Amino acid sequence: MDERSGSATPDEDDDEFGLPPRLVEEALEAVEADDVARLDALLDPLHPADIADLLEQIGPGQRRDLLALWKGGVDGDILSELDESLREEVIEGLGPGELAEAVRELETDDVVDLVEDLAPEAQEAVLGALAAADRVAVEKALTYPEYSAGRLMQSEVVRAPSHWTVGEAIDFLRSGVPLPDQFYHVVLIDPRLKPVGYATLGRLLSSRRETPLRDITEDSFRTFHVEDEQGDVARTFEKYHLISVPVVDDDDRLVGVVTIDDAMTVLDEEHEEDILRLAGVGEGALSDSVIDTVRGRLPWLVVNLGTAGLAALVISRFTGTIQALVALATLMPIVASMGGNAGTQSLTVAVRALATRDLTRSNAWRVIRREAAVGLVNGLVLALALGGMTMLLFGSVPLGLVIASALVVNLFAAALAGVFVPLLMERIGVDPALASGTFVTTVTDVVGFFAFLGLATVVLL
Amino acid sequence: MDERSGSATPDEDDDEFGLPPRLVEEALEAVEADDVARLDALLDPLHPADIADLLEQIGPGQRRDLLALWKGGVDGDILSELDESLREEVIEGLGPGELAEAVRELETDDVVDLVEDLAPEAQEAVLGALAAADRVAVEKALTYPEYSAGRLMQSEVVRAPSHWTVGEAIDFLRSGVPLPDQFYHVVLIDPRLKPVGYATLGRLLSSRRETPLRDITEDSFRTFHVEDEQGDVARTFEKYHLISVPVVDDDDRLVGVVTIDDAMTVLDEEHEEDILRLAGVGEGALSDSVIDTVRGRLPWLVVNLGTAGLAALVISRFTGTIQALVALATLMPIVASMGGNAGTQSLTVAVRALATRDLTRSNAWRVIRREAAVGLVNGLVLALALGGMTMLLFGSVPLGLVIASALVVNLFAAALAGVFVPLLMERIGVDPALASGTFVTTVTDVVGFFAFLGLATVVLL
Repeated sequence: MDERSGSATPDEDDDEFGLPPRLVEEALEAVEADDVARLDALLDPLHPADIADLLEQIGPGQRRDLLALWKGGVDGDILSELDESLREEVIEGLGPGELAEAVRELETDDVVDLVEDLAPEAQEAVLGALAAADRVAVEKALTYPEYSAGRLMQSEVVRAPSHWTVGEAIDFLRSGVPLPDQFYHVVLIDPRLKPVGYATLGRLLSSRRETPLRDITEDSFRTFHVEDEQGDVARTFEKYHLISVPVVDDDDRLVGVVTIDDAMTVLDEEHEEDILRLAGVGEGALSDSVIDTVRGRLPWLVVNLGTAGLAALVISRFTGTIQALVALATLMPIVASMGGNAGTQSLTVAVRALATRDLTRSNAWRVIRREAAVGLVNGLVLALALGGMTMLLFGSVPLGLVIASALVVNLFAAALAGVFVPLLMERIGVDPALASGTFVTTVTDVVGFFAFLGLATVVLL
Repeated sequence: MDERSGSATPDEDDDEFGLPPRLVEEALEAVEADDVARLDALLDPLHPADIADLLEQIGPGQRRDLLALWKGGVDGDILSELDESLREEVIEGLGPGELAEAVRELETDDVVDLVEDLAPEAQEAVLGALAAADRVAVEKALTYPEYSAGRLMQSEVVRAPSHWTVGEAIDFLRSGVPLPDQFYHVVLIDPRLKPVGYATLGRLLSSRRETPLRDITEDSFRTFHVEDEQGDVARTFEKYHLISVPVVDDDDRLVGVVTIDDAMTVLDEEHEEDILRLAGVGEGALSDSVIDTVRGRLPWLVVNLGTAGLAALVISRFTGTIQALVALATLMPIVASMGGNAGTQSLTVAVRALATRDLTRSNAWRVIRREAAVGLVNGLVLALALGGMTMLLFGSVPLGLVIASALVVNLFAAALAGVFVPLLMERIGVDPALASGTFVTTVTDVVGFFAFLGLATVVLL
């Protein structure tokens, strides 16, 4: 069992990783047969993340049946791993006693992550199940802004006065004080609780007992403020190869620590947001219902209907031209489509570079100039091809020249729109991934149709 | 200085993070003034990642001048942090002595990462600069497949026989053996060098000296094989919240360890690949030249030219219909554009879910059914709007019905293509992000134009 679920090495059917498909079927069979013992035997050896995966992959009815049978098995770690869209459903299915037992063992950062998006009643149920001290820590964390370091940090920190030696620190660690499950540094603090450095456990272990802690601190030391944005926190971890970073409040006092595994999760969520927003898909999970999914996507399609209408309006100004030369109707979508694709290329590169902080004010003009040059070169090359083919197929040199010129104009516009739109959105404080795609393709549709049909009207009629 | 560069808290102009823009300008001024001392004073306090950022953000000529002036300052860490596209350029600019000094201090995994994409001569220059033992380790790593765990791991591992006690392990660590810069576990091995468990340094520090190591090992223990794919490795780290994982060879012997910071970098690179490939942009960096950028993007635009031609071919079959009713030319891009957008939505969700392994064989049919239902619902809602508006604006009920029907058909096709195309590509072993977008919009263009113009021909003429 352990081997099937525990190894990252792909099975024979190598699109699987983590959860073997037979396991899902076997678990569903056990549920159908009302066989608790068999279900226990199947699920108990699994990592909580795999059980969460299983719950996400089955249908709502199957999930209800499985949980009814296996209520006692749901622990805090499984709740933590579950997709947000399912947490409420699962928490509601648990009794108060089961819920209390499930959340008590979690670290405060996991509880915060668990409750922050819950409806008030479900949130109260979880908070009520916590020990008093944990409840205070969680409620404190919830006072920090959403997506802030304060929500991400765990309040359990291993700290030591900065005048201690290695030996004193080790004795303290051995003294039976409660320690976090995972920690990587001992944070040195001054008498006012301000963190002044940290030592890795590796240095602590390999140094002599009499060494002062402040002699083995790391150059990489830095702190976050509780209100720093989680996205910046995650990028900082990645950029500077950090493993854990102390968090301070307004008075510079140590209040918690963010660890790299949490930063990695944030980075992955930011990725998800970027890629989905670029495609005009709201937040959502594969386990969402049809109605929730429609709710996430329909608004963007409605916006697109409006912008497509704008393009149609441009075309409608030229119906006379089209009537006179119907080949234009055949060719015009090519110009618009090429512009849309080139614009999406520029846009995606710009959005990604903004997210990774590779595109900044220092190099914005350089990038804009480069995109413009790329747009022009691509436009000229493609115009040669498309213009030539048009001349051959339609037997008209002027028509070829018109489509070639329109293509150059549109690819140049596409390149500029692709980089200006996200830069502008960033400047006014809107996520550049959000809806930029619609703006850019609106530009390329309007410019494409207008340039092509306009030129055709002037040159060909 | 330290504060300006070291804090993750954004400045007043809060689109900056890491590298303040004035610093770039000041450094360039120092270069222009040939003022080495001033350049040193500016760059020395910076983190290598920030210096790499600076080199990436300035132009090629400025870079050449800066490096000529500041050759001695380039160390291995800066080379590691540099974007691949610039490494070769910078390495070529260094003398052999400077290069040797730069790479000697790096861990083997960083050297591997540094050399694997270099041209043979540059690679040889770096390898030649290494100490013999390191060179062997790096050359060994280069025998593993690209993008494998073997290339990602560091060969420096802290290991201990599984029968040791905590005290024995600590004494060993204190004995002055060379230790890696960063390590988080002591890996327990059996006499055949097979890893059998690991203990965190935190547990080691907080346990009594006489405790056997095997009593404090972690449940999370798992190993990777040297040939496991880096993408799977990174996902496994994220899914199971791992911090470091031992790597074994074919004989199950411990040969290295992958740490979470490397996994985080891989995750970020995989995301970059997904988002850029979805947009039809080849690999590339902001610092690439115009020509390199054109090379990355033009091929996709050429493919798009072909598929746009296919759409044009469909339209050309209906020129008679368009001539008879020129309003069709105005309206037809709306149907195609809506389909393209809806298809991109489905596609992006499917590509992302495949990348995170949320979409598997177990739930593929469920997801396909959901997408089909979403496509149908969105199609019906939008058809109502578009059909109604068309009836009003063009005063024709049949035209409204035709465009409404075509929209439903196309959004249904878009939903199916958006999920089938990436699933199919995954099944045949091609990256689902690669070129799926072009396939999907080809489907939606062809279906959109055909359904609309075909229905119009039958119903309206």
